[in-house]
Amino acid sequence: MKALWSPTGRIALERDFWIAVMKAQRELGLAIPAAAIADYERVKSQIDLDSIDARERLTLHDVKARIEEFSGLAGREFIHLGLTSRDLTENVEQLQVLRALRLVQFKAAAALSRLAAQAATHRDQLLTGRTHNVPAQPTTLGKRFAMFGEELLSAFTRLGELLGRYPVRGLKGAVGTQLDQLTLFGGDFKKTQKLEQRILKHLGFKAALSAVGQVYPRSLDFEVVTALHQIAAAAASFATTLRLMAGQGLLSEGFQKGQVGSSAMPHKMNARNCERICGFTTILSGYVTMCAGLAGHQWNEGDVSCSVVRRVALPDAFYAIDGLLETWLNVLGQMTVFPAAIAAENARQLPFLATTTILMEAVKAGAGRETAHEAIKEHALAAARALREGDTASAPDLVERLAGDARLGLSETALRKILAEAHRFVGAAPAQVDHFVATSRALAKAHKGAARYAPMKLL
Amino acid sequence: MKALWSPTGRIALERDFWIAVMKAQRELGLAIPAAAIADYERVKSQIDLDSIDARERLTLHDVKARIEEFSGLAGREFIHLGLTSRDLTENVEQLQVLRALRLVQFKAAAALSRLAAQAATHRDQLLTGRTHNVPAQPTTLGKRFAMFGEELLSAFTRLGELLGRYPVRGLKGAVGTQLDQLTLFGGDFKKTQKLEQRILKHLGFKAALSAVGQVYPRSLDFEVVTALHQIAAAAASFATTLRLMAGQGLLSEGFQKGQVGSSAMPHKMNARNCERICGFTTILSGYVTMCAGLAGHQWNEGDVSCSVVRRVALPDAFYAIDGLLETWLNVLGQMTVFPAAIAAENARQLPFLATTTILMEAVKAGAGRETAHEAIKEHALAAARALREGDTASAPDLVERLAGDARLGLSETALRKILAEAHRFVGAAPAQVDHFVATSRALAKAHKGAARYAPMKLL
Amino acid sequence: MKALWSPTGRIALERDFWIAVMKAQRELGLAIPAAAIADYERVKSQIDLDSIDARERLTLHDVKARIEEFSGLAGREFIHLGLTSRDLTENVEQLQVLRALRLVQFKAAAALSRLAAQAATHRDQLLTGRTHNVPAQPTTLGKRFAMFGEELLSAFTRLGELLGRYPVRGLKGAVGTQLDQLTLFGGDFKKTQKLEQRILKHLGFKAALSAVGQVYPRSLDFEVVTALHQIAAAAASFATTLRLMAGQGLLSEGFQKGQVGSSAMPHKMNARNCERICGFTTILSGYVTMCAGLAGHQWNEGDVSCSVVRRVALPDAFYAIDGLLETWLNVLGQMTVFPAAIAAENARQLPFLATTTILMEAVKAGAGRETAHEAIKEHALAAARALREGDTASAPDLVERLAGDARLGLSETALRKILAEAHRFVGAAPAQVDHFVATSRALAKAHKGAARYAPMKLL
Amino acid sequence: MKALWSPTGRIALERDFWIAVMKAQRELGLAIPAAAIADYERVKSQIDLDSIDARERLTLHDVKARIEEFSGLAGREFIHLGLTSRDLTENVEQLQVLRALRLVQFKAAAALSRLAAQAATHRDQLLTGRTHNVPAQPTTLGKRFAMFGEELLSAFTRLGELLGRYPVRGLKGAVGTQLDQLTLFGGDFKKTQKLEQRILKHLGFKAALSAVGQVYPRSLDFEVVTALHQIAAAAASFATTLRLMAGQGLLSEGFQKGQVGSSAMPHKMNARNCERICGFTTILSGYVTMCAGLAGHQWNEGDVSCSVVRRVALPDAFYAIDGLLETWLNVLGQMTVFPAAIAAENARQLPFLATTTILMEAVKAGAGRETAHEAIKEHALAAARALREGDTASAPDLVERLAGDARLGLSETALRKILAEAHRFVGAAPAQVDHFVATSRALAKAHKGAARYAPMKLL
Repeated sequence: MKALWSPTGRIALERDFWIAVMKAQRELGLAIPAAAIADYERVKSQIDLDSIDARERLTLHDVKARIEEFSGLAGREFIHLGLTSRDLTENVEQLQVLRALRLVQFKAAAALSRLAAQAATHRDQLLTGRTHNVPAQPTTLGKRFAMFGEELLSAFTRLGELLGRYPVRGLKGAVGTQLDQLTLFGGDFKKTQKLEQRILKHLGFKAALSAVGQVYPRSLDFEVVTALHQIAAAAASFATTLRLMAGQGLLSEGFQKGQVGSSAMPHKMNARNCERICGFTTILSGYVTMCAGLAGHQWNEGDVSCSVVRRVALPDAFYAIDGLLETWLNVLGQMTVFPAAIAAENARQLPFLATTTILMEAVKAGAGRETAHEAIKEHALAAARALREGDTASAPDLVERLAGDARLGLSETALRKILAEAHRFVGAAPAQVDHFVATSRALAKAHKGAARYAPMKLL
Repeated sequence: MKALWSPTGRIALERDFWIAVMKAQRELGLAIPAAAIADYERVKSQIDLDSIDARERLTLHDVKARIEEFSGLAGREFIHLGLTSRDLTENVEQLQVLRALRLVQFKAAAALSRLAAQAATHRDQLLTGRTHNVPAQPTTLGKRFAMFGEELLSAFTRLGELLGRYPVRGLKGAVGTQLDQLTLFGGDFKKTQKLEQRILKHLGFKAALSAVGQVYPRSLDFEVVTALHQIAAAAASFATTLRLMAGQGLLSEGFQKGQVGSSAMPHKMNARNCERICGFTTILSGYVTMCAGLAGHQWNEGDVSCSVVRRVALPDAFYAIDGLLETWLNVLGQMTVFPAAIAAENARQLPFLATTTILMEAVKAGAGRETAHEAIKEHALAAARALREGDTASAPDLVERLAGDARLGLSETALRKILAEAHRFVGAAPAQVDHFVATSRALAKAHKGAARYAPMKLL
Repeated sequence: MKALWSPTGRIALERDFWIAVMKAQRELGLAIPAAAIADYERVKSQIDLDSIDARERLTLHDVKARIEEFSGLAGREFIHLGLTSRDLTENVEQLQVLRALRLVQFKAAAALSRLAAQAATHRDQLLTGRTHNVPAQPTTLGKRFAMFGEELLSAFTRLGELLGRYPVRGLKGAVGTQLDQLTLFGGDFKKTQKLEQRILKHLGFKAALSAVGQVYPRSLDFEVVTALHQIAAAAASFATTLRLMAGQGLLSEGFQKGQVGSSAMPHKMNARNCERICGFTTILSGYVTMCAGLAGHQWNEGDVSCSVVRRVALPDAFYAIDGLLETWLNVLGQMTVFPAAIAAENARQLPFLATTTILMEAVKAGAGRETAHEAIKEHALAAARALREGDTASAPDLVERLAGDARLGLSETALRKILAEAHRFVGAAPAQVDHFVATSRALAKAHKGAARYAPMKLL
Repeated sequence: MKALWSPTGRIALERDFWIAVMKAQRELGLAIPAAAIADYERVKSQIDLDSIDARERLTLHDVKARIEEFSGLAGREFIHLGLTSRDLTENVEQLQVLRALRLVQFKAAAALSRLAAQAATHRDQLLTGRTHNVPAQPTTLGKRFAMFGEELLSAFTRLGELLGRYPVRGLKGAVGTQLDQLTLFGGDFKKTQKLEQRILKHLGFKAALSAVGQVYPRSLDFEVVTALHQIAAAAASFATTLRLMAGQGLLSEGFQKGQVGSSAMPHKMNARNCERICGFTTILSGYVTMCAGLAGHQWNEGDVSCSVVRRVALPDAFYAIDGLLETWLNVLGQMTVFPAAIAAENARQLPFLATTTILMEAVKAGAGRETAHEAIKEHALAAARALREGDTASAPDLVERLAGDARLGLSETALRKILAEAHRFVGAAPAQVDHFVATSRALAKAHKGAARYAPMKLL
């Protein structure tokens, strides 16, 4: 990602672009010697930022400085024929976006693959599901992962759609009328179309815009950055929930070997990486706002009030999503589940979570529905109160309370038997995991190497 | 749009939903009498908000109040079997979103159609193209419209992709495990799947989510609202440019019969509707921020901190885009172009815009390229200065200056002849218009009635 | 708040404004009969929205319709002399803002007062402080409340500063040059100044802008809405932490009498109101974006692209903060702390939280610092691991482990004694509470009635 | 600004901070040798980022690495006594913020000063004021500048208020209870207070927070960044209007010597710097969103999900405002007004702008008010239509039309006389300029050197 957006990386892309244009122009009949193209090819990787900088201080024009530098190195003057600055910069920036999007797609596929693996591993691990952050109904840990995985799947699908049609501006000239290329080819419209097609193919774009101005519509940038934010959102929902679970001691996002929580408290297992994932998402929401502030603000055929914004928002949004995905992949690879702690929570909560089932059994056993409901409600409220008041030693637990109530007609043995069947309370959770895993694996396969991608080590 | 999001409209959708669920449950074997369903059908349009409100004040629970009201009217108790509140509200809200998105798609198709018509009408109208808000190169007015049209096309395509896969949450229960429906059908997973499929079909969704929590992922809402903002951006770029053109007296957004600019200055032709279009876009950017603030913030299986936000952001974002599209359709239908004013601007600017062509002709006529460039530069700067200094009476214009310079070797006649060929300076603009018009018409056809849709009269 | 922003409330303010202008104009010499003013006063509360609506449909001009309605009722034509529409609407809207800000200030003072009361009540309640959502060091519950209170204090101070200087646009005419008022007073500049001063005083503003255009700068709206968001942030930090604590069963945001958690699970104590507070804050962040999108976008002396945005963002931002404050006041009044649950958590965590103190005592008792540190680290990690692995029955706890290590030289009795002094581990927390309480009480006193304000009952 | 936020600059601040703490700790009785402090002072400017980096790769802890580096250089171990990481980082980051805010205040004072100078220069330059981007009423150019100046004044006042009370977190320890400092000073609360007071004084803060957690409230960051955005808004309103005026050829933002508009069109005077100012403002709106996403999201005593966001948003927001102010100062110093072009526009528009005055004169001359109004309306509409239709050669202008209408009773001479008094139509504009200039100069004086500050040359 850094290589793509670095000054050096960008200049490399520009030079590739210029050479591609020259070759196509030559093939279509312009008088550009093959030897000149060869001269440019020969020097294209000699990128000296200081020299370009010095030239810019003289010309006060960034593109001019880079033209002069490249032509100076090659000892030729054949690049940038019939191009305006924007014919270069718009296309090269879109190329950066395209390649960066593909990288995000690859790493998102990797995340999908790892998340599916974790969901599969914990497919049947009974877990106290929570709504409003308090215990609600049983689920499984694998299902919880699959749930965030499905959020990622939606975002991943959208990203694929965008990549399937992301259109490049092409060689359209100062106000988008292709005047200069047309002039260069003596008014031959077909040749300008062929030229653009060849450039497109070279750059790897599937589509070009037709009627543009000096610039391509900035709502395209908005679309790109919002697609990134959507990927981030899935990660952030996952990370937020991991932070909650870490707070209850149910799991840890994992530690590198030798790492300790903090110097003062070495046992402290902070979910720092998950916090960072949430932070990256907040960062992306800021770039969404910046791009929303550009979309719909085009004046006539375009101005450059967007320029300084895009220089910040585009690379930095891609850096943020890349940092997020690398962090997430680390967490997905290292996280540690504490089954004993999960089981302890389940034991505390299960009687409460099972009240619906207990009601049904009581009715089956002959109790009146309303009577049984009232009885259960009374005992649940009383048991919850006792728990809060710390009255756990002396006070009976919920099962004991229910067993002692003749209205229900269920013995403690019968009740304990219901609770022992807890694995049934998770409903379709395991089936949902299977569905997610199957879908994800199919998708990840389409992205070679994604499943085995090893993320960078985090500092 | 109002009908969709009004309290009454929502309750109507809810009752349809409940009835659909009952029918499917009955078909799949639950003991729900056909007569009971008929009783609900009979009263479903008796919507009394005051009565529901009164019930809510008693139960302190909104869904419960609406269940009791509907069952009270029908004299039955068969709705909401095995459902939690969210099984109702999530699906009904997604139904509102789906239908609202379709309405937006329809009106956007109408806008595309009208914009194409305007582009076709003004296909060849020579116009002074502007970058940085100052004259740059010639274009045509039709091309300028096509340019904003192409921005709309991108947004329209994205909206279509979203509509093609927008997935509904379905009947998933309190934490998303389908426990209650499974219990209702005696653990028969196939039946719960069939039930969901039938509901989907009834509601018109093409896809359902599988592994969800209490709620569907809120990044889906973010995706919806950003898709709306992208539509708005195309309109806003158009509207901003119209405001600029109105400021130069080149066109007017149109007036209703009898309308005057302002009471004090009746001739003042304010682009108020275009300003409003820009305003609606700013509004949408706020809802984008709200939904970005929900996406990625899911706690465990879900909480309701999103609830109050979605109650504001979803309907209000749809109202904003609807207001924008209606306003835009009015402008597209009523706007008036002032060809004389456009021609007067062209006449002032053309000599400057033609300097590239003049340079080429001078070279053809034997001048040295560098010499000719220097000469043209001198005269262009001098003529521009004279214009700024108001020195238009006494000072020669640019053509006279160029004609008087022997370095160029072009007579005033030769120069005027070049300018008379101005229609050639627009390059591929007319061809780009044709391309946009053809594409748009094909799309609009796919949305029956869109091309003929008559927008509401604005107040 | 509703009364302020309702259509009827706004028209009432407008009529007051017109009457104030008439009176001042009369006093300064314009020929407006006292009887005419009396006629307007007599009918000013006859507000008939339907009639005004019907007039607007005829005139296509909202202000004109309201002028005609009011003059029609009075049978006079003396209002709006020398005013443009914006002279009315800008000032009346700023009046709405001013009064709404004061209401927010009052309710924020009430929140400060209640928060101080809660902080005082729980000043010494030992609590396991958390960073990264995991136990870190002891604090007190009162200190935790004071911490969020101090965030509110900052926001409250800023709000006070804004209210101390919020400047009104005044009667400045169509482009801000006061031309029409000057003409009315025969060019007498002093009289126009006096007129404005009297209107200011009448409306309760402390300052007026001088050099404005058609509109006052929209960055003022941005300032207002960001001030509201800052108030909201304090509440949201508090609410987020309450949601976390409710998830651990340490406290509840409180229930109204007879309320149960959910029909299926009556013991479930959802922090719904705290979730709602977070939601309102997210809503406000959207209005911040809207107003940021207006600030800095003034064209010349002003346009109305801001109009539709302000009509949404201003009232709705005030409704959101009002809803938030009412909700918060309810929570602050009803919340219930579960000391037994807090004590249970402390008992589990305290040995870990006390390791710093234990280290010092070991050193005092003669152990080498590095040796002791290493020993404590080993045992803390082992004890934490045992806890996670559910090995609580068989495995020794941290105190037992430390007591058994000769390197430390501290007996179990000595260690238990250290833990018994836990109240000392809270450092300056109680003193910080005292400081916050004293500051808040002083501020609340300055807002009469705030401390006793009873919030609306929530539905 | 770069020095403040650079890695080196930050480390310099950190070392100053550590030394200040050591000195204060020594004065308050801790056993820190004066020679040790001297050793630290001696090496404090030896900042070797690579060495620190290498240490961080070993320790995996950034603060630890920087402690070890500094202590290693000094050959001592006395820094960071009783501090946690946040005691260092929070305070140093707030110091960066404080100093950066002061720099912004200084440059904003410089902008105010230059804007006042421009307003004074063009105090009486008659200008066609515009609302809705179309001519509305006369104003003066100086008044237009003063209008944006007054927007800056509001933002400047707010910034001053913030700087007057911006509170630092202070030495509060891991969860904010001051436990470690208290322990260090044997529980002597007064000494910890004194220590904090001395640090405050050293750093230049006027206030400290009392009850904080691990971190200071992030709504403070929101307040800071919104204050920057408000400053930016004034600049952006100015820049937007300059872009509009440049599009009409009324002025230019100025060129550096030798600079040309573009290589192809050297006379093109693009308002690139003004566009950039607008871009910087859009950037800031993104950082506002990021900080809004942190405010109100504190979990318990704090976590670090804010960390990565603040590392981006704080420095980058300050870089953006700094770039904006430098750009603006350049524009304010270089911009060129074209009085002839302004006069030409006035000549075209004045008859329309004067219709209100003409109406009054007609009434004075005996015409009926309604009759005169109707006559003027007819002619204004007809003249405007003729202008749009290019019918300027043959058709009479508005003055001729009015003179020819007996209903008005005003001769062409009388009408031309009214227009010749155009300078009166600007109302109180010059007086408003005077007021702004006086206020600004007083403020600028309070910031020594601001009025003479020479901005950096832009590339």
